Amino acid sequence: MAVKKNARQTILDAAAPLIHSQGFHRTGLKEILDAAGVPKGSFYFYFKSKEEFGLALIDHYAENMRALAASILTEDGSLALERLSRFFAVLCGRMAERGCAMGCPIGNLAQEVSDLSPAMQAKLSQVMASFTRRVESLLAQAVEEGGLPRGLDPATAAGFVVDAWEGAILRSKADKHPAALERFHDIVFNRLLR
Amino acid sequence: MAVKKNARQTILDAAAPLIHSQGFHRTGLKEILDAAGVPKGSFYFYFKSKEEFGLALIDHYAENMRALAASILTEDGSLALERLSRFFAVLCGRMAERGCAMGCPIGNLAQEVSDLSPAMQAKLSQVMASFTRRVESLLAQAVEEGGLPRGLDPATAAGFVVDAWEGAILRSKADKHPAALERFHDIVFNRLLR
Repeated sequence: MAVKKNARQTILDAAAPLIHSQGFHRTGLKEILDAAGVPKGSFYFYFKSKEEFGLALIDHYAENMRALAASILTEDGSLALERLSRFFAVLCGRMAERGCAMGCPIGNLAQEVSDLSPAMQAKLSQVMASFTRRVESLLAQAVEEGGLPRGLDPATAAGFVVDAWEGAILRSKADKHPAALERFHDIVFNRLLR
Repeated sequence: MAVKKNARQTILDAAAPLIHSQGFHRTGLKEILDAAGVPKGSFYFYFKSKEEFGLALIDHYAENMRALAASILTEDGSLALERLSRFFAVLCGRMAERGCAMGCPIGNLAQEVSDLSPAMQAKLSQVMASFTRRVESLLAQAVEEGGLPRGLDPATAAGFVVDAWEGAILRSKADKHPAALERFHDIVFNRLLR
């Protein structure tokens, strides 16, 4: 038996790809509600404002990312660095598959709203920090496995790698070419972390 | 004697900080023309469309960046890597000074318009490539000075460094804190290029 989603989740599911490709401010409530197939009144029943909706959308993107990370990064007998390398290779492949369009939904929002909504800025910062801690835990494991260069601090390296990834995504979006993603993977895994 | 700027340049000078802080689509023509103090009709005299104006604005931002780069990166007797390090330190300082707001004007536009305007996307890609070649030429000089790690290809490293910089700017904008910029500078100059 199919479980009926609640309208709040339906709105978020419909909005996520629209805002990922068009941006937060360019995507109107009407477009979102039409795509979700829910009546206009239900938006303000579930979300007090577009900002509160934006906060829920950030959670939605973060949860998708956490699920993907869990499926690839979780302990499976392979080395931590191998799992991390595989994870970024999957992300590179996804970006390339869609013609290097759209970019990172969290990075896009960070660029667009960080100076406009302190609440969304704070949540985006937290989401990036949380993902960085996930990467840090793998790099800490890599240290125990003897697989990280001497003196490379896992927290510093993790932050740098996540930021470099956001920059590579942005460049590939501007280039409409995945070369920057491949370069990221090559430098990070064949040089920086080796 | 002060030279009177033409109205086209006045419009671009007024628009540049507005769009840098608010975004391209969020900044209306009326707001730009009010800030520039020129009559509404003059916009379409100088620019056929907002897209053509966007192309001129990208040139404007790129020219500012080139001028800053020229003032710091040009041969002055110091090592190429020292000049490059100084250049990014200046950029870090500027971002920190403005409370980590606004970000990189080229990166912002790349995020916002790369999927919406092929003409702006192509020009943004060219501007990023041109800046990357400037960094590459310094890294090539560093190789001659014996200052780059063995086997590090200047073109690949330059692209990676520029992308990592864009990612660091974005993170500091999301964090409203310059830690990511300092981390970028530390990892790039004390590890990757050392």
